[in-house]
Amino acid sequence: MAYYVLYTNHKGEYIMERIMSSRNLTQLTDFYQLTMMQGYFFAKDVNETVVFDAFYRTNPDGNGYAVSCGLDQLIDYIKNLHYSAADIEYLRKTGFFREEFLEYLANFRFTGDIWALPEGTVMFPREPFIKVIAPIMEAQLIETAMLNIMNHQSLIATKASRVTHAARPDGVMEFGLRRAQGPDAGIYGARAAMVGGCVGTSNILAGEMFDVPILGTHAHSWIMSFPDELTAFRTYAELYPDACILLVDTYDTLKSGVPHAIQVFQEMREKGIKSKRYGIRLDSGDLAYLSKRAKEMLDAAGFEDAVISASNDLDEFLIQSLKNQGATINSWGVGTAMITSKNCPAFGGVYKLAAILDKETGEFIPKIKLSENAEKITNPGNKTLYRIYGKDNHKIIADLICLADEKFDESQSLLLFDPIQTWKKTHLAPGTYTMRELLVPVFKNGECVYESPSVMGIREYCNQEKETLWDETRRLRYPHEVHVDLSDALWKMKNELLEKLQGN
Amino acid sequence: MAYYVLYTNHKGEYIMERIMSSRNLTQLTDFYQLTMMQGYFFAKDVNETVVFDAFYRTNPDGNGYAVSCGLDQLIDYIKNLHYSAADIEYLRKTGFFREEFLEYLANFRFTGDIWALPEGTVMFPREPFIKVIAPIMEAQLIETAMLNIMNHQSLIATKASRVTHAARPDGVMEFGLRRAQGPDAGIYGARAAMVGGCVGTSNILAGEMFDVPILGTHAHSWIMSFPDELTAFRTYAELYPDACILLVDTYDTLKSGVPHAIQVFQEMREKGIKSKRYGIRLDSGDLAYLSKRAKEMLDAAGFEDAVISASNDLDEFLIQSLKNQGATINSWGVGTAMITSKNCPAFGGVYKLAAILDKETGEFIPKIKLSENAEKITNPGNKTLYRIYGKDNHKIIADLICLADEKFDESQSLLLFDPIQTWKKTHLAPGTYTMRELLVPVFKNGECVYESPSVMGIREYCNQEKETLWDETRRLRYPHEVHVDLSDALWKMKNELLEKLQGN
Repeated sequence: MAYYVLYTNHKGEYIMERIMSSRNLTQLTDFYQLTMMQGYFFAKDVNETVVFDAFYRTNPDGNGYAVSCGLDQLIDYIKNLHYSAADIEYLRKTGFFREEFLEYLANFRFTGDIWALPEGTVMFPREPFIKVIAPIMEAQLIETAMLNIMNHQSLIATKASRVTHAARPDGVMEFGLRRAQGPDAGIYGARAAMVGGCVGTSNILAGEMFDVPILGTHAHSWIMSFPDELTAFRTYAELYPDACILLVDTYDTLKSGVPHAIQVFQEMREKGIKSKRYGIRLDSGDLAYLSKRAKEMLDAAGFEDAVISASNDLDEFLIQSLKNQGATINSWGVGTAMITSKNCPAFGGVYKLAAILDKETGEFIPKIKLSENAEKITNPGNKTLYRIYGKDNHKIIADLICLADEKFDESQSLLLFDPIQTWKKTHLAPGTYTMRELLVPVFKNGECVYESPSVMGIREYCNQEKETLWDETRRLRYPHEVHVDLSDALWKMKNELLEKLQGN
Repeated sequence: MAYYVLYTNHKGEYIMERIMSSRNLTQLTDFYQLTMMQGYFFAKDVNETVVFDAFYRTNPDGNGYAVSCGLDQLIDYIKNLHYSAADIEYLRKTGFFREEFLEYLANFRFTGDIWALPEGTVMFPREPFIKVIAPIMEAQLIETAMLNIMNHQSLIATKASRVTHAARPDGVMEFGLRRAQGPDAGIYGARAAMVGGCVGTSNILAGEMFDVPILGTHAHSWIMSFPDELTAFRTYAELYPDACILLVDTYDTLKSGVPHAIQVFQEMREKGIKSKRYGIRLDSGDLAYLSKRAKEMLDAAGFEDAVISASNDLDEFLIQSLKNQGATINSWGVGTAMITSKNCPAFGGVYKLAAILDKETGEFIPKIKLSENAEKITNPGNKTLYRIYGKDNHKIIADLICLADEKFDESQSLLLFDPIQTWKKTHLAPGTYTMRELLVPVFKNGECVYESPSVMGIREYCNQEKETLWDETRRLRYPHEVHVDLSDALWKMKNELLEKLQGN
C-alpha cells in the first residue's frame, strides 16, 4: 500500500509527499547526533567510512541469554529515513545549523551496509548484534532510533521467553496493553512477546499489523452491566459458544462465579452445544487454592476439559510458584510484568565506534574505548560473529567474535580461550563441532537485501533457537553462562591497542 | 494542518481519507472490548448510558502524589476514532463478528461526555482523574487506549517530578530516548518529563512536536573519531562556542579530559570569545570525587562559571546522594531511570463502571465492584471531585469525592471524615478554606470543548500545582499522605449498596 500525505506548507501551498510507511521517524534521534553530524560535515571528510557495533553488556533480569528482536522495524526506519521540508524548517529555527548542512540533510538518505542477527536469535553479552559500515554521519544519525527499537523489542522478547518457559507446556497470552509505556510499547511489545513464545495477544492493532492471534473474552464491567451474574454468563455463552471463558470473580468466585459458570455449561450441554473452548478465568484471590477448588467443582459436573485460565499481576516466578503449589491453571494471561519487563525495564544495548577506514590503504584502523572495568572496554576492528555447536546435539558450545576476514575450517581442531583469564582453554577436536556465522547482510549500499519472515515465522525460529541452549542456561535464576570468546587475531589486536594507549 | 491518506483498497480503487492526525489508533484496544461490544449490541439497548471512572490505587514509586498527564493525546485519540475499511475487513476475517455489528462499527464515532483533570494537576489515589458518561459500547471501547496513554504519561511526569525535585535548583535534562520502550515511549515520555519539570530533552522529534527545548552536545564517538582528544574538543568549540559542553571521560577524566577542556577554554578566552554556556560533562567514574577535582581545576584556571554536568544511570536518589556528598555538579542528564520509571515501570490506572442511567427515571443507578480488600471496593455513582485548600497558604488540606450534583458553600463549616476509620474527623471553620472543582469538561456530546495549553504552559501550571503540596508530601521516601475523603451522601450510598449486596 502506498501512502501519500497532503499538507499545506507555511506559504499555504499544498504539498503531497509520498511516504514509505505511515510514520517518519527521521527526527527520532538525540540532538547531539545532529550537532556532531554538522561537526563532521564542516571538520572532516564527509565520506569517511566507519564501523559501529551494537552490543549489550548484561542479560536483562539475570537471564542466561537474550532474544534479538526489532529488526523489521529497524529496516522500516532506515528505508524511510528522509527529512521533510517541515523537519528542515524546524532545525533551521533552532539557530544551530548552517544552510549548507541543512541542504545536505534535505538530500539525506542511508547509503551504507548493515549486518544483523536474524530476529529471534538467542544472543549473549558483548557480541555484536548489529554492525554498521557507513559514512560516519549516516552511522551516527541512526544510533538513537536503532537502539530505541532494538532495546525495546529485545527486552520484551527476552522477558516473554522467561514467562513462557515458566508456563510450559501451557500457553501464555499477552494482556498488557493498558499498562504499556505508550501505544508503541503496547503494539511492538505484543509483537516481541509473540516472538518470545506467547500464543496470542489481547491487542487488536498488533493482531492486525502482524497477523498474530488475538484473544480475550470479557471484563468485570460485562458482568456488572447485567442485572445478575447468571444472566451475564448466559448471554455471553449464547453469543460465543466456541470461545466461552467466563470471568468468575466479580462477586464471589466459589460461591457465585464457578457455580453459575457450571450452570451455563450444563445448559449448553443440554442444548447439545459442543464448545470448542470453554472454561473459567480467575483474576483475583489465592489462585492456587481457587483453581484447585474450581477444578474439583468442574470435574464433579463432568467438565474435565474446561480451561482454567488465570491473570492478576503474574510473572515468571509467580507462575512457577503456582505450578509448584499444584494449581490447576492451564492457561495464563500476563500483563504488566511482561509488557514493561517490570523487574528490569531497560535493555542496555549500546553502539560504539570500532574502526575507521583508511582511504589510502583500504584497511580499517581499529578504535577502542577504554574503561577501568575490563568488561567495559570495547572490541576494536571490523568483526563478525560465529556460533559453535556440538555436532551430536546441536547445543551451543560457545560464541566466537573474530575479525571479519578470518576463515575457519571445521575439519581442523579449534582452540578457544577466555579473553580475560586466558589460561582457561578449550580444545575442540575436528568433527565434534559445527560453526555458523550469525550476522547476515541486511542493507548493502543503502539497499535492503533482507526479507523479514512473518512474526509467527520468527516465533517458530526463536523456539528452535531456544532448543540450542542447555536447560542450565534457560533456568530463571543463576543460569549457566555461555562463553563468548575472541579469536586469537582479535585478542592480539585488542591487547596491542591497549598497550599502545597506556603508552607501554 | 490537514492530513489526507491516499491508498488503494482491495478492489484497486484509490481512496482518499481525511485523517485528524497522522495515526489512527482505533484498533489500539483489547479484543475483549469488541467481543463485549458485540454482546451489548445484540443483547442490550445500544444506547444504554453509563458512567465510568478512571482512577488509580497507589502512587508510583512510593511518591506522595502523582501528576496527571496525557490528556492532549487522549483528546487526539477520541477525535480520531473511526474504523477504516481495512480495519473492518480485518475484523470480518477473524470470524468473530456479525455483519450488523461490523456495519455499526463502520459508522462508529464517540458521542459521549468526558471530564478530566487538566494535565499537570497533582492527584491522589482513588479519586477519579477521568469520568466518562456515554453509551456503554463507546465507554467500553475507549478504556484500553485511554489507560495506555494516561498511565504512561502520568507515570513519567510523576517520576520526572521526583527527579527534578531532587536536583533543585539545578536543571534536569531528559536523555533517555535510546532506552525508552519504543518510539512513543521516547516521544511522549519526553513530553511527560517536561511536564514533570525537566528543562529540556535530547529528543529532536519531541522538540519538534511539542515545542520544548532540545539539548545535547557530543558523544564519545566524536572524540574517538579524531586523532586526539584536544583536536576533537577544539573542533567542537570552534563550531559551537555558545553551547560548548565537552565530554571529558573518553580516555582519562582528570589527566586528559579536564586539562584539555581547560586548554580549549583558555584558547577561546585568548581569542576574546565569550561563551554563553561552556563547561564539561562527566559520564563515568566517581561523580562526587571527579566533580570536586574538576571544579578545583576549572576554578584555578579562572573558569568559575563553567557548567559541570553529569550523566550515567542517575536517578533521584543518586542525585540526592551526590548533593549530600558535596558534588559540584550543577546540571543533570537523566536517561534510563526516568524514561522507564525504572523502579516502578507501570502506573496502575484502572477504569470501572460506576453507574447506569435509568431511562425511565432519568437517574443514575449506582454500581459497585466488591473486593475482600476495603481499599479495592469501587466508589459508586455519578461523582465529581473537589480540592480543599487552606485559605491563608493555598496548601492542600484534603480532596473530597462527592456526588456530581452536591453543592458546597465555603461560607459554611465543612466536616470531613476518613471513609474507612469514620471516627477520624476534621472540622473546617468558615473562612479558613477554599474549594475548587478539579474535573473539567473535555467532550460534550462527542464534541471537544477543551483546548489544551502548550506543553511549556502545562509545565508551568504543574510547577504551581506542586507548590500547593506541603514539603512533607513532596519528600522522596515516606511522604505524608494527603487525605481523599468521601462526602456524607456518597459514603451513605456506598455503604447501603454494600449492605444490600451482602444480603443484610
